[in-house]
Amino acid sequence: MSSTCLKLVEVEESRRFMIDCFKAVNVPEEHAKAQADLLVAADHRGHFSHGMNRLEMYINDLAINSTDGAITPVVLKETPATAWVDGRNGLGAVVGNFCMDLAIKKAKNVGVGWVCAKGSNHYGMAGWYALRAMESGLVGMSMTNTSPLMAPTGAKEAALGTNPLSLGANACGKDHFLLDMATTAVAVGKIEIQNRKGASLPDGWAQDPEGKVTNDAKLAFETGCLCPLGGTELTSGYKGYGLGAMVDILTGVMSGANYSTHVRKWTHTGANTAANLGQVFIAVDPNCFAPQFQERMTDFNSILRNTKPTDPKKPVLLAGDKEEKNMKDVDQTGGIEYLENQLKTCAALAERLKIQPLRFK
Amino acid sequence: MSSTCLKLVEVEESRRFMIDCFKAVNVPEEHAKAQADLLVAADHRGHFSHGMNRLEMYINDLAINSTDGAITPVVLKETPATAWVDGRNGLGAVVGNFCMDLAIKKAKNVGVGWVCAKGSNHYGMAGWYALRAMESGLVGMSMTNTSPLMAPTGAKEAALGTNPLSLGANACGKDHFLLDMATTAVAVGKIEIQNRKGASLPDGWAQDPEGKVTNDAKLAFETGCLCPLGGTELTSGYKGYGLGAMVDILTGVMSGANYSTHVRKWTHTGANTAANLGQVFIAVDPNCFAPQFQERMTDFNSILRNTKPTDPKKPVLLAGDKEEKNMKDVDQTGGIEYLENQLKTCAALAERLKIQPLRFK
Repeated sequence: MSSTCLKLVEVEESRRFMIDCFKAVNVPEEHAKAQADLLVAADHRGHFSHGMNRLEMYINDLAINSTDGAITPVVLKETPATAWVDGRNGLGAVVGNFCMDLAIKKAKNVGVGWVCAKGSNHYGMAGWYALRAMESGLVGMSMTNTSPLMAPTGAKEAALGTNPLSLGANACGKDHFLLDMATTAVAVGKIEIQNRKGASLPDGWAQDPEGKVTNDAKLAFETGCLCPLGGTELTSGYKGYGLGAMVDILTGVMSGANYSTHVRKWTHTGANTAANLGQVFIAVDPNCFAPQFQERMTDFNSILRNTKPTDPKKPVLLAGDKEEKNMKDVDQTGGIEYLENQLKTCAALAERLKIQPLRFK
Repeated sequence: MSSTCLKLVEVEESRRFMIDCFKAVNVPEEHAKAQADLLVAADHRGHFSHGMNRLEMYINDLAINSTDGAITPVVLKETPATAWVDGRNGLGAVVGNFCMDLAIKKAKNVGVGWVCAKGSNHYGMAGWYALRAMESGLVGMSMTNTSPLMAPTGAKEAALGTNPLSLGANACGKDHFLLDMATTAVAVGKIEIQNRKGASLPDGWAQDPEGKVTNDAKLAFETGCLCPLGGTELTSGYKGYGLGAMVDILTGVMSGANYSTHVRKWTHTGANTAANLGQVFIAVDPNCFAPQFQERMTDFNSILRNTKPTDPKKPVLLAGDKEEKNMKDVDQTGGIEYLENQLKTCAALAERLKIQPLRFK
């Protein structure tokens, strides 16, 4: 990718633009900020698939009221350690923050908070909610189900989503571990990129319509059947399939939301039905167990980062290290580097919503 | 594998033999029964690597007192939803059952029970503890760390174990979902089998001493560096590496047990230090969330099993289906089919421990 395709946008300007977009489709300021914070954090961390890139899809869903931007979630049932929440078809970040804040409160009281939401929408990067728990000194976990895109091992049709899971834990200082991963081998975006490049796919990424692994990026993109993490049966793809199912059980099935093939397809133009996704938010207070958790995390992180690398020039990384580096790079260069295509979409959005266009350098 | 290598042993006889072995190395009857129940369940379900196959290793550890077969665990700290337990170097099944029973009690009271143990030993198949929670109508999870065998992505030495995780949930009747998986691509036993056959390994299973993927089963077995689930970086092996680290954080690091490379190597002859493994046991009451959880599980299971199979003769399976079939087969044939090599080991054990030999047909 040549640097001429990239334009620099200040983090605050990216945030301002997204807030303005949400407000233009009648999202109250507080909710607009919550959703924009989530999306801009994804771009800041280098998870471009979950940032500005998704803005238009959210806006389209809001414009046709298939998401209700103004709604706040309600607690349907609770115990000292659990809550069952109805997101009432609100914005993903609004539902997610509400639930994780509740889980944090419960964890502070009884050691664990386990909050399950139905009636939610796409909630952005799963790691966002783990980070929220970490800010309160807790271990955070979150999972969501998504639209069907993964074929179970031995099947030729999709029946589970990319169903991501995240877990984050603080070490000393600002160091931490932050896992945020889809349970499919790769995200559909990776196949899209190979397709655009005219490049082939490695084995174990995606299937053709007959259920065989394909190296044809165009065919894979059209088929929409990703392999689970692990690829084929020979390389234990059934484990990734099992993990994807585990996420759906703890989110969609447990919350009474849609699950498996009951989840709608998410289209670029907006869907005409509510997504009714299921999500889970878990906070755990490490102080309920052995003292000095963060000190041990520092040692744990250090052991992993210092294992002998295969290539001496490439030190071993920990989950979350790449994202921390991306944030530092953005802070040093003074902004997020967006592709020109992304900026064209933003310009069209600004015109359509009659808001101030995105400023870039 | 030809059927001539196999001998049929009644389930009760397999259990009797294991109990006698444990009692011969001074394990009290109640503990001997707990440990035997776990091992025989693994064989019954077809997880031979976690059954009688492990008996000799347990016995060796007990004989040299590197595991204390008589000890019962103690609670060090607790809240309504959590407990921190010291296993005091007791038998894995004794520590594990104690912790899961405590988690179940807490989940019945406040919706979730989250129990973390240090000072534990190899605890057998992780699914055993999920099943225990399921017997009480709860969703069960369990994880354990293990001796280093997995190389982090980009590393040429092992720094994490096979670190398995399990999750089980009841559907209606006796149907259920039961995931029980190592976070490595394959178990080391699979490499041993390929090595014995003189067969090569598929890509993505294991590394050579330089950190490159190897197809040489002998070299892979000697090196002892398994790939994480997902294989190499290209096929998202860093996700399996992240999952393995997640398990170690929730078990070893959180409980204050050994973790990562601090965990001893587990040798066939018995180690001269305590394992001090970390484990976590989680029970969740689905009744705290949307009603009719089991009914939705039945629908969920049915959707997955009925996805169109790639091969019409091979219906799509769910996590736990293979094990259920194995149990039925054992019940129909009247016993567990053990390899002759296994029976030789048992004969030697019987002689050494001066107990009644294992009867087979």
